Amino acid sequence: MSPAGPTMWASVLEGTKNVALKQVPVPGIGPNQVLVQVAAVGVCGSDVHYYMEGRIGDFIVEQPMILGHEASGTIVEVGANVPAARVGQRVSIEPQHICRTCPQCKAGRYNLCERIEFYATPPIDGAFAEYAVIDQDFAYPIPDSMSFEAAALCEPLSVGIWSNIKALTGPGSRILIAGGGPIGIIMAQTAKAFGAAEVIISEPQAGRRQMALRLGADVVIDPRETDFTSPDLRVDAFIEASGADIALSQGIEAVRGDGRVVLVGMSPSTTQTIPTATISARELILTGIFRYANTWPTAIELIASGKVDMDALVTGRFGLDRVVEALESTRLPATLKSIVVPAQRG
Amino acid sequence: MSPAGPTMWASVLEGTKNVALKQVPVPGIGPNQVLVQVAAVGVCGSDVHYYMEGRIGDFIVEQPMILGHEASGTIVEVGANVPAARVGQRVSIEPQHICRTCPQCKAGRYNLCERIEFYATPPIDGAFAEYAVIDQDFAYPIPDSMSFEAAALCEPLSVGIWSNIKALTGPGSRILIAGGGPIGIIMAQTAKAFGAAEVIISEPQAGRRQMALRLGADVVIDPRETDFTSPDLRVDAFIEASGADIALSQGIEAVRGDGRVVLVGMSPSTTQTIPTATISARELILTGIFRYANTWPTAIELIASGKVDMDALVTGRFGLDRVVEALESTRLPATLKSIVVPAQRG
Amino acid sequence: MSPAGPTMWASVLEGTKNVALKQVPVPGIGPNQVLVQVAAVGVCGSDVHYYMEGRIGDFIVEQPMILGHEASGTIVEVGANVPAARVGQRVSIEPQHICRTCPQCKAGRYNLCERIEFYATPPIDGAFAEYAVIDQDFAYPIPDSMSFEAAALCEPLSVGIWSNIKALTGPGSRILIAGGGPIGIIMAQTAKAFGAAEVIISEPQAGRRQMALRLGADVVIDPRETDFTSPDLRVDAFIEASGADIALSQGIEAVRGDGRVVLVGMSPSTTQTIPTATISARELILTGIFRYANTWPTAIELIASGKVDMDALVTGRFGLDRVVEALESTRLPATLKSIVVPAQRG
Amino acid sequence: MSPAGPTMWASVLEGTKNVALKQVPVPGIGPNQVLVQVAAVGVCGSDVHYYMEGRIGDFIVEQPMILGHEASGTIVEVGANVPAARVGQRVSIEPQHICRTCPQCKAGRYNLCERIEFYATPPIDGAFAEYAVIDQDFAYPIPDSMSFEAAALCEPLSVGIWSNIKALTGPGSRILIAGGGPIGIIMAQTAKAFGAAEVIISEPQAGRRQMALRLGADVVIDPRETDFTSPDLRVDAFIEASGADIALSQGIEAVRGDGRVVLVGMSPSTTQTIPTATISARELILTGIFRYANTWPTAIELIASGKVDMDALVTGRFGLDRVVEALESTRLPATLKSIVVPAQRG
Repeated sequence: MSPAGPTMWASVLEGTKNVALKQVPVPGIGPNQVLVQVAAVGVCGSDVHYYMEGRIGDFIVEQPMILGHEASGTIVEVGANVPAARVGQRVSIEPQHICRTCPQCKAGRYNLCERIEFYATPPIDGAFAEYAVIDQDFAYPIPDSMSFEAAALCEPLSVGIWSNIKALTGPGSRILIAGGGPIGIIMAQTAKAFGAAEVIISEPQAGRRQMALRLGADVVIDPRETDFTSPDLRVDAFIEASGADIALSQGIEAVRGDGRVVLVGMSPSTTQTIPTATISARELILTGIFRYANTWPTAIELIASGKVDMDALVTGRFGLDRVVEALESTRLPATLKSIVVPAQRG
Repeated sequence: MSPAGPTMWASVLEGTKNVALKQVPVPGIGPNQVLVQVAAVGVCGSDVHYYMEGRIGDFIVEQPMILGHEASGTIVEVGANVPAARVGQRVSIEPQHICRTCPQCKAGRYNLCERIEFYATPPIDGAFAEYAVIDQDFAYPIPDSMSFEAAALCEPLSVGIWSNIKALTGPGSRILIAGGGPIGIIMAQTAKAFGAAEVIISEPQAGRRQMALRLGADVVIDPRETDFTSPDLRVDAFIEASGADIALSQGIEAVRGDGRVVLVGMSPSTTQTIPTATISARELILTGIFRYANTWPTAIELIASGKVDMDALVTGRFGLDRVVEALESTRLPATLKSIVVPAQRG
Repeated sequence: MSPAGPTMWASVLEGTKNVALKQVPVPGIGPNQVLVQVAAVGVCGSDVHYYMEGRIGDFIVEQPMILGHEASGTIVEVGANVPAARVGQRVSIEPQHICRTCPQCKAGRYNLCERIEFYATPPIDGAFAEYAVIDQDFAYPIPDSMSFEAAALCEPLSVGIWSNIKALTGPGSRILIAGGGPIGIIMAQTAKAFGAAEVIISEPQAGRRQMALRLGADVVIDPRETDFTSPDLRVDAFIEASGADIALSQGIEAVRGDGRVVLVGMSPSTTQTIPTATISARELILTGIFRYANTWPTAIELIASGKVDMDALVTGRFGLDRVVEALESTRLPATLKSIVVPAQRG
Repeated sequence: MSPAGPTMWASVLEGTKNVALKQVPVPGIGPNQVLVQVAAVGVCGSDVHYYMEGRIGDFIVEQPMILGHEASGTIVEVGANVPAARVGQRVSIEPQHICRTCPQCKAGRYNLCERIEFYATPPIDGAFAEYAVIDQDFAYPIPDSMSFEAAALCEPLSVGIWSNIKALTGPGSRILIAGGGPIGIIMAQTAKAFGAAEVIISEPQAGRRQMALRLGADVVIDPRETDFTSPDLRVDAFIEASGADIALSQGIEAVRGDGRVVLVGMSPSTTQTIPTATISARELILTGIFRYANTWPTAIELIASGKVDMDALVTGRFGLDRVVEALESTRLPATLKSIVVPAQRG
């Protein structure tokens, strides 16, 4: 039987809080695609959200779906237009399919593609499975020295890169990040790799502040004890990575004239109240991110060169049969990144 | 007595709803400044606000102050470092004094100067007077063919230019503007001059919609009858020029992916509730403006070339002794721009 | 026989100065492509160059090839993935095929695609034929009011748009263009549509200067009588559209600090001598263009709104059997744009 | 006698190859200026050029002038508008006086100021003296931990920062630098601080290649043995820091599509021959730098944080009485940066 045989094991979300290990067909590949034997998949907050709630905003799980979109692995089969020499290549997956013909795609903003299909966003399957399919140009070769786990974490690292691009982080920048969880820490490490002079993480939990200080922040602050309007806290950019409404409105007050505000954390609400008078008076530029575009080469370079350390974020590994544990582990204070390893049992 | 004699007539705001015509000292000029005999001054909403309320946000009128900041006139006296040949020059005034040494000034963002002093912003005197003083480089020569009234309206036109710069208005752009008052109309004319393909003004009052259509908009809509989420209304940028909170949140929904939102209108509140989920999902860029920088040369060119028509906006002229009437005229539906003419009596 | 029958008439370049009208197979279309019955094709200098010399730089005509890349027509057949309703649609053709997967394509710079195939660039066939094939998203619908000739000239107009984007032409700009031929005139019209305050065309031939003045320039100058270093001639950007080496080095001297220089005209040599000391001392930004990207929507809008007038440039029409005459007509002083009309005989 | 007494020792260039230690008046300061007791001054190639040739291009030494523009020291006297508390402050000097009112100054490009006066550019005195005068905002406080020598080298570091800003150096960038002298090494260190993935220095002298590799480059190459057209050498940007014409034309060939070329080195000629066909075909962006603007805060941060190491570049120290030796030391292969220390004798 070929490596891409007719069936494979996958962890399937069949309903709210209902995940089952099942035999499902190995997905077929198109002429410009490759089949990847999945080696490692990071667990993301959105996976947990679909598992717990069955939806994120307008995206509703209405049929069985495989979760997981932070993935790496080895190419085991290639489509007709892909060089056969790519079989065996270790790759990091940019987990999306784009139309390549809409105005946004042609303008280089393919994350805003009108017909985008993204792993583990209903109804598209993700990578908590033995195999996954991806367009050949979204399977990026990684150096031998890079672990599959770090390669999988190119995905959240891309969120960090895209956010810091939007924040205009550069040499000498002073950056405020709200939220000391894994994404806040990745933001901080990325900001330093972009040349930031000082990265400040605001986080109410003392344990997370300690972790953030160890893993990337130069300074940590407790937002309950901070005056964000103080001239001493003026920053070039503020990245909101906590999802807390209060964090957004507080952080805006800390940004210098002509500075940037980047929304990354998702509020429970679709609307938020922000200090528009401050935005106008200082001509702040506020934007949000929707995934990323053209970040993988930079992500791979930052990991390969040691400028960021994704391996240090991994706090647990789980086989395909323990996906529920992996998902639930994200609530534990000690968890930063849980990894699903399809080849592992238990 | 020299043209810049020791006293002059000025319209002085002495308290809320208390304006008086008084003899005051002619202001002295520094070595890099000029004294301008004021020819025309537009009445702005902020003048009305200080007159009615005695304050705008944190700016409080605590001592007698001369209102008026949309001004033009003739140079009658020059400082030691200014060429004597400039006496007699007809000029448009950029009504501010900047420090020129803070980081914002040196970066070209002098509107965000830490020590900015602006006409008719407490405690700085404005131009409802016979004479006004200004730094020589902020007194811009105007062509003979340009009226003093149009020259005075380089100021609100600069707001339009700065907003359209922030909106990235360009050839082919489709622009939505909320608010069909004078500033909305100026926004629309400016957008067309920047090459916009279609300018849509949203305005609830039928009379203003008619005026907007005649004076600059390609299309006018009634926001109460419009579905701003409709794909048919997708615009490249949205300029909020009404100050209405509902207009802001509605307009954001109309902007295409990677499009711009520019706050110009001032809400009564310092905070506003906006659809941040839409901002993130479409990666919209939201910003506000605080006056303008480096816009006067463009303003003068747009007027001189006929690409915008500021004279068409003038609906009334008032002498210095009728400033109260000029201020109150702004409430009349037929008023677009009232002009104070210091040399006129009655 | 279907409209896209097995053979069609085409004007085939079989060798240097050897063009023949022949029956050739109608090209087949892929699932994302359309077949267009060609209505009008502009004659470009590059067509003439291939006809006269058999090559442009490294691009060598080594097998029979159909010339013509400024094309419009009517869709007569659609691929499997294209809506059938597009049959009958009048379209302007963006005459290229791109890979959509290389880094340049994904970054929105598809004109720099590593695997680009362009009409009438060896060995790719162009549009001097009854039918031509194009990717569906590169066949842009045009309004009923637009002539097929103007639609064909969206191609050189795109060169004008792309150049003015690179030149940062905007409201108030003063632009110098070297070369008063058709491309210089299109540059000038486009610059005005972008809001330029003054467009100066430098052209040594008096007749062309007259034409340029009538069709787009605000001012025309004779380079042999002009001091390009004069402070009176300081421009915001200089677009070199003549191909003359002297024009390039002269024009650079006219650009203000931080201004732009855009190379459009092709020198006979691959190298040119430029005043680098001036580039450094004024921090000029010099770049060149290679075709265009994402310009068609703007091109169609500029024509449809009347901001540019492509129809006014057409000075001759030729049937497929008179392509040689069409090519040779470009040498005549009175010629601006010659159009090949495949449906016409004679 | 006050520290800013009537006379001071200065090293005065009195003619070509004629430098003399003389007593000259201590310069007076304006109300917005400070007097700095000079602590360290780097020797720059332009100082040597004026010493050897008496001119650089159109700038001709026509009267006695003090050389030296890379300077640091301690404030000993302040003008009327400067806080007295600044006396005693250790500062790095941005060695220029700007008008602050011309369009370039107001747009934030003050290095292109029409009336700029720069240290040691005829006829403006520089800093090879006991005291120097500077506008208060161009005297930047430095941390106690920073040496005066490193503080003086904020000036060439600013050239490196400005060049890398123009080169768009950022995370993941691959940068080629021609020239392994002090400025090339500073470029390389700066590029790394900006996040560059790989910095390649091209330098024909083996000894300089070794030094470059030790002090900042990731890779060094010998241009005489390099094929710059090889796809393996494709870089995001090329910084020409050697002044050699061949280096410029070679380096351009190595830049990827849409990449940058920055001219820093000065050719003996005011014109250079460059491959414009490559610039057009790849849409390269070529520019040059004229000093810098708004770079000092970043320079100070890069040194203070250890991201660059300016102290490592210092290879010799000379008293005011040994300025000739300092100037001539720059020809020695082992010299990177010679420092003049006014307080030192011998």
